[in-house]
Amino acid sequence: MYPKQIAKDTAKVLQSYLTYQAVRTIISQLSETNPNQAIWLSHYSDRTKLQDGEAYLDGLMSENKELLLRILIVREEIAQQVLDFLPEMVRTGIVQANVEHRRKLLERLTKSQTSSSTTHPEST
Amino acid sequence: MYPKQIAKDTAKVLQSYLTYQAVRTIISQLSETNPNQAIWLSHYSDRTKLQDGEAYLDGLMSENKELLLRILIVREEIAQQVLDFLPEMVRTGIVQANVEHRRKLLERLTKSQTSSSTTHPEST
Repeated sequence: MYPKQIAKDTAKVLQSYLTYQAVRTIISQLSETNPNQAIWLSHYSDRTKLQDGEAYLDGLMSENKELLLRILIVREEIAQQVLDFLPEMVRTGIVQANVEHRRKLLERLTKSQTSSSTTHPEST
Repeated sequence: MYPKQIAKDTAKVLQSYLTYQAVRTIISQLSETNPNQAIWLSHYSDRTKLQDGEAYLDGLMSENKELLLRILIVREEIAQQVLDFLPEMVRTGIVQANVEHRRKLLERLTKSQTSSSTTHPEST
């Protein structure tokens, strides 16, 4: 395991995901103030493009400079509001999910033992 | 903007991404100790399945219980090692990216102004 590389890769994915959330926020704002631009941005911003947030923003520069600047601002705002909560949220999420997966696994093992001892009572 | 919903969605994406990193780590470990199982896990774990980490793990329960438990453990380890560094890494990444996008934009605007004043000297 290479935790440093994993941290770097994860930070990059997270940054692209926050870019996607900024774009979504702006599309929702525009749908009230400028529906045509909302439709344009929504068509322009498909999932594939947003996989690499920075490349997406570079591309948008030739299309619409104002929207580009707006995304930069909104992304920074979202980052300020959510980043600090994430470590604890994800840690709790993983602990809870692990408990749940282990519970299901135990339930399944107990069931299969019970059913096998019922089906083959002679084997015990 | 709904920061609470965005934080929730982002935490979910992050949790699935760490599941993917745990699977990658285990595939790389297995490729040395048990190549056949490495190939099996690698085929089983395509990107689409790993989009929802918990559903992927639920599915794996019927296929290979030991690998499931191993992923739970490795994912928790990775989470412990990387989560606390992410807020600062992403914040810095976004600030740097914003500087870079704004620099490119300014360069482009300056160039287009210079070239337009060179091409149409009579218009000035």
